[in-house]
Amino acid sequence: MSDKVRLGIIGLGAQGSMYAQFIKNGMVPNMQIGAIADIHAEKRETASREYGVPVYADYQSLLAGGDVDAVVTTVPHYLHPEIGIAALRAGIHALVEKPAGVYTRQVAELNAYAATRPELTFGIMFNQRNNPLYQRIKEIVDGGEIGEIRRTSWIITTWWRPQGYYDQSAWRATWGGEGGGVLVNQAPHQLDLWQWICGIPESVYAKVAYGFRRTIAVEDEVTAVVDYGNGATGTFVTAVHDLVGTDRFEILGDRGKIVVDGSKTATVTRLVDDERKLSDSMDMDDVRKLFMGELDPSSMYTQETIEFDSAWGAQHSGVLENFAANILDGTPLLAPGSDGINGVRLANAIHLSSWLGQEVPLDFDEDRYLTELNTRIREEGKFPERQA
Amino acid sequence: MSDKVRLGIIGLGAQGSMYAQFIKNGMVPNMQIGAIADIHAEKRETASREYGVPVYADYQSLLAGGDVDAVVTTVPHYLHPEIGIAALRAGIHALVEKPAGVYTRQVAELNAYAATRPELTFGIMFNQRNNPLYQRIKEIVDGGEIGEIRRTSWIITTWWRPQGYYDQSAWRATWGGEGGGVLVNQAPHQLDLWQWICGIPESVYAKVAYGFRRTIAVEDEVTAVVDYGNGATGTFVTAVHDLVGTDRFEILGDRGKIVVDGSKTATVTRLVDDERKLSDSMDMDDVRKLFMGELDPSSMYTQETIEFDSAWGAQHSGVLENFAANILDGTPLLAPGSDGINGVRLANAIHLSSWLGQEVPLDFDEDRYLTELNTRIREEGKFPERQA
Repeated sequence: MSDKVRLGIIGLGAQGSMYAQFIKNGMVPNMQIGAIADIHAEKRETASREYGVPVYADYQSLLAGGDVDAVVTTVPHYLHPEIGIAALRAGIHALVEKPAGVYTRQVAELNAYAATRPELTFGIMFNQRNNPLYQRIKEIVDGGEIGEIRRTSWIITTWWRPQGYYDQSAWRATWGGEGGGVLVNQAPHQLDLWQWICGIPESVYAKVAYGFRRTIAVEDEVTAVVDYGNGATGTFVTAVHDLVGTDRFEILGDRGKIVVDGSKTATVTRLVDDERKLSDSMDMDDVRKLFMGELDPSSMYTQETIEFDSAWGAQHSGVLENFAANILDGTPLLAPGSDGINGVRLANAIHLSSWLGQEVPLDFDEDRYLTELNTRIREEGKFPERQA
Repeated sequence: MSDKVRLGIIGLGAQGSMYAQFIKNGMVPNMQIGAIADIHAEKRETASREYGVPVYADYQSLLAGGDVDAVVTTVPHYLHPEIGIAALRAGIHALVEKPAGVYTRQVAELNAYAATRPELTFGIMFNQRNNPLYQRIKEIVDGGEIGEIRRTSWIITTWWRPQGYYDQSAWRATWGGEGGGVLVNQAPHQLDLWQWICGIPESVYAKVAYGFRRTIAVEDEVTAVVDYGNGATGTFVTAVHDLVGTDRFEILGDRGKIVVDGSKTATVTRLVDDERKLSDSMDMDDVRKLFMGELDPSSMYTQETIEFDSAWGAQHSGVLENFAANILDGTPLLAPGSDGINGVRLANAIHLSSWLGQEVPLDFDEDRYLTELNTRIREEGKFPERQA
């Protein structure tokens, strides 16, 4: 291999085109475009003209063509595991787009195969993990600076999408073609960050609105409550119909709190001791002062504001560069491919809870999920049911 | 009756003393203290010395004494309905403290009796309804300015209470003495405002933490999801263990959004049309612009920031003054007593959902609630069980 990884882009839609432009423009110094595959002839013409690389009509031919060291799967979500496995089987490194798949069983299959090929790099495009703000927050939480987590809350409704977005392709926002709505398309970033930073919950209860304010079969709004199993709980709210959306993420711990506004600014409060010890140390006179507004709690904590600029595209190109660096010199992956299943599991559990009208464990019955999903695909009547 | 209502203060604890001071200091111009009742001799001595009014050892004697036109029930919550009914029976106007009671059956009894005495004023101390910010928000919502509600969310964890607060009296934070924790003591204000402004939900699912970070039997943290029955949902989070608490209330509607920070500042967004119509009116080029960050949505809405100063005590004294004005000249009540049951019903439904581990309708089985409550009172072993 040369000093640049030759990337095969499978699917030259909006996302694939963006990555191709990043690489062409030199934003990913350790990568070059090796080949492009697309099932549409006009996309192949564009690919050939614009990038001057070999083009293929299907991913199998691209994998067999010998032009690439690695691929990225910028195709509908259902195909991510299948193409990921095919690439790895062909001895080609695989960067899967998010989500890793639509349902956990297919993603587990991908993970299981990838585990047998440790010599190959298997990554996932969680570009938000490349956001320095969230990296810093993860460091603070992992380092125990705010103590054990008590409560988490993320309202992320900045995913506004007009009806025209859904109407532009036949697979979009269908059960059989896309496998869900905001949970599988937009919110996977936050579902990943939420569990990456705060841990994987044990169970979830959700209210999910299907076609609530958009003419689509799948969900356009989600409210989920999770239980971490140790008394701590969390909430997650997302929607595509809030024109002036909210992005507010709170993490309360035994020794502090983090409030992130707009994925740009984090206010980190560090208590001088465990909150419970501070509470226990207060006498009756302190209580009286508290009620009279005479207690100044600021001696009990410090606050820091963290802010990072983020350049458009830098997150995605950074993941591409990190993926290539892992191939070239073993640089640790920001987002190992095997992590992708966690967000899919959360999304599946949220769907399943809303379908059953009850709390479900994160280790829910995966066959039950697929049966329920296939019921919706069948009723929709546009795409074939999925096999386990 | 003179031009001032003679108020009987039943219970000279922290709250009763505060009202007595307000009246003594002239903050309630249409009220004077008529008499004070307290079961503790030292409180009666204080009352006599400090206010120079007749004092009584029990509320029955105060009601029979002929010194008062009205009473306020600043006593433990379980007693509010009983004393409210006794006052009205004696032909005395009643202002009940919040919450109206601990369980809906006892509050329904109070409401039913009050309905037979329309000539008497029956109010409740929802002092936050006297906050001009929330009055303005209610006007905006009721006036349809943000359209039909899609989603509501209130995180209100500014109710920090140290352990010493709970240890200062034997009835505090017990099932038999207080009947609950943050839901019956601190959060009733927000439970009232939430349903006053956004409407009464049809069902609730809740995760409630009992003695999670405080050594108490009752709840110190609550996460509730409500369903309004028309596709709209809401969340409500409250806790007493967040030293740097959050107070953030969001209401998303079909034509706009309101975000209230710290019960002080509201950002009101008004869309130029129904969000769905704006969504439908966008063509493919707009969608492309949206994804390229080239779409400026600000032409689709206007924003206004609303801010009010609030003076300490003004809310409570305002409710006292409004209550007296209703008695004297029929001024409409800010908070009719019969409204008190709505917040109690929400709190009961939240408890019951957490006890049963399932979603419960707001018209839950009230006998079931009382049975579950009595189970906890019995296990606690400190106070007698409650009779229906």
